[in-house]
Amino acid sequence: MGELVDTNSNYIAKELPRIGITLVRISQVGDNQEELVSVLKEAVNRSDIIITTGGLGPTDDDITRESISQLLNESMYIDQESLEDMRKIFIRRGINMSDTNIKQANLIPSACGIKNEVGTAPGWWVNIDNKNLIVMPGPPREMHRMWQHEVLPSLLERYNNSLIYTRNIRTYGLGESLLNEKISGIIDSFGFEWGMYAQPLGVDVRIRVPAESEQQAKSSLDKLEVALDGSIGDFIWGFDQDTVESVLASNLLNNNLTVAVMESCTGGLLSNALTQPPGSSGYFKGGMVAYSGVLKQTFGVDSNLIHKFGTVSPEVAADMARSVRDLVGSDIGISTTGVAGPSTIEDKPVGKVYIGISSTDGTHVKELNLPQERLLVKQRATNEALMTLLKLVAN
Amino acid sequence: MGELVDTNSNYIAKELPRIGITLVRISQVGDNQEELVSVLKEAVNRSDIIITTGGLGPTDDDITRESISQLLNESMYIDQESLEDMRKIFIRRGINMSDTNIKQANLIPSACGIKNEVGTAPGWWVNIDNKNLIVMPGPPREMHRMWQHEVLPSLLERYNNSLIYTRNIRTYGLGESLLNEKISGIIDSFGFEWGMYAQPLGVDVRIRVPAESEQQAKSSLDKLEVALDGSIGDFIWGFDQDTVESVLASNLLNNNLTVAVMESCTGGLLSNALTQPPGSSGYFKGGMVAYSGVLKQTFGVDSNLIHKFGTVSPEVAADMARSVRDLVGSDIGISTTGVAGPSTIEDKPVGKVYIGISSTDGTHVKELNLPQERLLVKQRATNEALMTLLKLVAN
Repeated sequence: MGELVDTNSNYIAKELPRIGITLVRISQVGDNQEELVSVLKEAVNRSDIIITTGGLGPTDDDITRESISQLLNESMYIDQESLEDMRKIFIRRGINMSDTNIKQANLIPSACGIKNEVGTAPGWWVNIDNKNLIVMPGPPREMHRMWQHEVLPSLLERYNNSLIYTRNIRTYGLGESLLNEKISGIIDSFGFEWGMYAQPLGVDVRIRVPAESEQQAKSSLDKLEVALDGSIGDFIWGFDQDTVESVLASNLLNNNLTVAVMESCTGGLLSNALTQPPGSSGYFKGGMVAYSGVLKQTFGVDSNLIHKFGTVSPEVAADMARSVRDLVGSDIGISTTGVAGPSTIEDKPVGKVYIGISSTDGTHVKELNLPQERLLVKQRATNEALMTLLKLVAN
Repeated sequence: MGELVDTNSNYIAKELPRIGITLVRISQVGDNQEELVSVLKEAVNRSDIIITTGGLGPTDDDITRESISQLLNESMYIDQESLEDMRKIFIRRGINMSDTNIKQANLIPSACGIKNEVGTAPGWWVNIDNKNLIVMPGPPREMHRMWQHEVLPSLLERYNNSLIYTRNIRTYGLGESLLNEKISGIIDSFGFEWGMYAQPLGVDVRIRVPAESEQQAKSSLDKLEVALDGSIGDFIWGFDQDTVESVLASNLLNNNLTVAVMESCTGGLLSNALTQPPGSSGYFKGGMVAYSGVLKQTFGVDSNLIHKFGTVSPEVAADMARSVRDLVGSDIGISTTGVAGPSTIEDKPVGKVYIGISSTDGTHVKELNLPQERLLVKQRATNEALMTLLKLVAN
């Protein structure tokens, strides 16, 4: 247990507020039937809705179905409809169905099967003393589809009276303490529930509002947003599910701007970030991972600057940004050069990074001194480059 | 609660087997003192060691300390030593300490402070009826350091009698069912506990062996490994904490080989993967994200091939791999070209990808038909490119 990072409960936790269901507990247990039965029993005593993911695979250590049968003291039988659906999947994939898969078609009298459109294991919707135990497969792709297409619509039908709306305000550049001092008075004066969450990129402020309609909630949240904008407007870069990549993408596309990258210490991560959003070919003109001085020169960087100042220098960062813009013909050129570690370069310490940005506004360089951990240097330098770009193109 | 993906319990879960501590339950609760007290009470009744992370921040919704005080009915006091340490951190960082930070120096009579070398919140080591409640901060960087430098050494001292050894065998290319059929008989004949875990890159087989010494465990595990090698040797690419990037790095360095990348649909992710390991400048000569046909030509791809076959074609994939090898002068050139989506390109469907690889062994192309989801296409095409490269260079 715990060998895998659990992203499933995170996914469901984000969905529940939309339907006004309050999450009180997340539990994980290993492939141990006794423990699983015990955690299910506790959960059924505590809550009206219990959601499980995982343990529906074909192998012996998949014991979710077995544990629920034991909890309810009901015997399993092969559900012919599920078995038929499963056979069709294997035929479609052109592979033979293994005998071990048959157990995935098991059902008990208190459960209905939940359709799995993209995998072999159907879910179970179990009724226990008028409480709902919803059992979904573990692979995120299967679980997400089952949740969106089967479980969520059915929950919405049953529990659509008390809706809770949330707004997530994404900030960058202020620590938690300082942010708290600047906003707690404002939000508390509105009487809303809220919390702060440190993210890889800045701090999120998440606000929860109970309301009878989306319109009513939106209006309260908009008023709060105006108040917050007066206090921390310069540090807000996005809302709700925004990513810096998606905000950048819309700003670049709306302003009809293109960008190209010449990166060194970030090793491809900056280009990768810029090509995450769908439609990125509309603004991303190309990237170079110029990992050596020679390759920087191949891509147009002035060899005199390299010899005079070294590859890790503000002068070379600026020339990389200018050169890539020239070479590719983009509106903006952005560059990174620095020391990701573990070794120093040209006597510059690990964590020293320069970000260059070049546009019709001229060429600017930012110096960073990051923690001395390789992957952190790559990630933070990329974050800073994205934020620098966003500052330039944001309306 | 649940808004963040919980990587902390995953980290600790991976550490516990080393010291023979069996993990029975992972629980998460929100910033709700009543719930937190109740989950702590249950945990103390169930287990000898309870580990918490998070809720030690300076703000009002950080309530781990408050909850433990309530559980033990003990009042908190400001620990002067912790306060002094905290002041030093703020001076070192050159920022003013906020009054809200003072509460992070709180302690109760049953707790000792645990040093936090990289953050402001010290941990707590609480003795409750001879059980250990170990309280660590939530930010992964602080928690990892505290675990490695303070908590783990102390736990090793107290519980070093019953050691459990694990080996993780990392495979690629076989599904869970088929893998299960090929190995379950072999592992069961050794009488070891084991499980399979689907990973982003293939399936891991994790084997657990109780033993009195590392040598004894190693010898049993080595025998099993020889047996498994006869059955699934072609599909095993690594062990334990190996990543495909780290295995590739050692193979390239040991064979004194260099590689360069020209990627299109993977958008920088392939270069990024190759530059993750420390020392990557020893084998990675550079990368190009040739996102357009024009840029591919700038980097040496034959424009006739692009016009005749289109940018998403085996012919262009091959020429990209050849061209980048020529341009950069590396031993190996590797390329990706395909349709990440959401739109089709040149009438080729989303998910169609070609991987090219060029070396003194000649140039080869692999065709992939991936699920029609943009980020999945980028990730899987990168995985396949890395695996293709590993097949070429593995000893």
